[in-house]
Amino acid sequence: MARADIAIIGTGPAGVSAALTAKNRNKSILLFGSSGISGKVSKSHKILNYPGLPDISGEDLVKAMKDHLDRMEIQITEDQVVNVYAMGDYFALQCAGKSGQDMYEASSVILATGVMPGRLLPGEEEILGRGVSYCATCDAALYKGKETTVLGYSPKEEEEAEFLSEVASKVYYVPVYQDEVKLSAPNIEVIRGVHKEIRRDDNKSVLVLNDREVVSDVVFVLRDSVSPGQLVPGLETEGAHIKTNRDLSTNIPGLFAAGDITGDPYQDAKAVGEGNVAALSAVKYLSSLKGKE
Amino acid sequence: MARADIAIIGTGPAGVSAALTAKNRNKSILLFGSSGISGKVSKSHKILNYPGLPDISGEDLVKAMKDHLDRMEIQITEDQVVNVYAMGDYFALQCAGKSGQDMYEASSVILATGVMPGRLLPGEEEILGRGVSYCATCDAALYKGKETTVLGYSPKEEEEAEFLSEVASKVYYVPVYQDEVKLSAPNIEVIRGVHKEIRRDDNKSVLVLNDREVVSDVVFVLRDSVSPGQLVPGLETEGAHIKTNRDLSTNIPGLFAAGDITGDPYQDAKAVGEGNVAALSAVKYLSSLKGKE
Repeated sequence: MARADIAIIGTGPAGVSAALTAKNRNKSILLFGSSGISGKVSKSHKILNYPGLPDISGEDLVKAMKDHLDRMEIQITEDQVVNVYAMGDYFALQCAGKSGQDMYEASSVILATGVMPGRLLPGEEEILGRGVSYCATCDAALYKGKETTVLGYSPKEEEEAEFLSEVASKVYYVPVYQDEVKLSAPNIEVIRGVHKEIRRDDNKSVLVLNDREVVSDVVFVLRDSVSPGQLVPGLETEGAHIKTNRDLSTNIPGLFAAGDITGDPYQDAKAVGEGNVAALSAVKYLSSLKGKE
Repeated sequence: MARADIAIIGTGPAGVSAALTAKNRNKSILLFGSSGISGKVSKSHKILNYPGLPDISGEDLVKAMKDHLDRMEIQITEDQVVNVYAMGDYFALQCAGKSGQDMYEASSVILATGVMPGRLLPGEEEILGRGVSYCATCDAALYKGKETTVLGYSPKEEEEAEFLSEVASKVYYVPVYQDEVKLSAPNIEVIRGVHKEIRRDDNKSVLVLNDREVVSDVVFVLRDSVSPGQLVPGLETEGAHIKTNRDLSTNIPGLFAAGDITGDPYQDAKAVGEGNVAALSAVKYLSSLKGKE
């Protein structure tokens, strides 16, 4: 497997900025994200304080960033990174790709995944790894013949539930959206309700809804983004944010963070600045690795 | 005197970004700098990694920033700030203005003056305030009838030397440039030579040149920018940089810093991001002041 110098996770302003600077410094990069760049930015009505682009709409800023990536010949890898493992002198990135599960390798990593919309469920973090999972593609095999629950935050998670139903004996599917659920496998049961918390009881995972409790062996919480502490085992966080130093390094050597994920202000200019700094800190880190060879 | 909410010193990318964000947050601002925005940026050939403006020339980036300030109706005050004094709950800014010496007041200050080109002279910092000065307009009166030396970094300092000659008994003028010196006052002596160091000897200030020593009561070192520790008495610095926290606060409450002055990387994107963060931190600080009233 070809190992990239720098893997950048996220295509918001921080990730784009990091990619431009890393490429400019002749590093090989893997940029994970969406060809739509950033749903959050594109939904901004007007951005008044991004220097040099007065009164720009979010949609136009996204276009300008995509155009900039294209000009620098930077491709976007559309797989979702679900786990980042620090292997010592490199990182292994586990993805839930459209093309099935993939692994990538990089010498350094920049996390620019933004902040998670909404909060963790009460209880979620406490029992993570003991009955809560964030990736059906990754963990389905662990629950062969078992009963499972899926808390799906968007209709695209139905595909994951479908896949899970081929392995698990039962799938309780709880949608966190109003759209009609299009799941037809006989062992899938759709349950509507407002989710309140998750707890572990008697070796079972219990998803508490407003009017009932769903008991099974595991709850898959399927959101677009996972919290940074869940993405990278061992990463030091402060609430929903990653703890970073002035050079945007984290407690894990070779791992950097930039943008909303490092804390407020949640601003495009701030994100762009941090992407730049994180990329150059990663470049410095790569040089230090070479020195050790 | 009207007191601004935020005084921003410097019109490079950090200062411009801070001004746009502060104005956007409805704060009254004083932006000190040059209508030319930034000589350093305008001299950049091509900037490849400022997100959203691919392949832009330094000149065009400066134009875009000036245009952005104009659209937000932000004026630039072209006086040079020579001293910032922390007065407790506000700051006094002493300027060497075109219109003579001026004082301004602001509730908070953002330093975005860039890094000083070149280094301090050996000995300069040690004897600062005891025979070295950075502002003839400010300190001339202290040297009435005394012998003075001016180390002038650009032809525009000749005006300062001229003014000084009206007060001091003698002015030794040492240009740090090749242009012809146009000074005609009888008590001004132009000395050409390569400056090496400054020291204090026997209550006199000695400017050491390659082939002689110039002895007088004070050496005025007249550069475009002064080092941050000299600009703000009591400010914690690390070499040529200001020591800042993640929110770009300094050791002085209400005083923030952004851009090259906080350390490398010396990049436009980084500066813009820091200007944004510093402005929002200043806004937070202003709210905390209000809470105390």
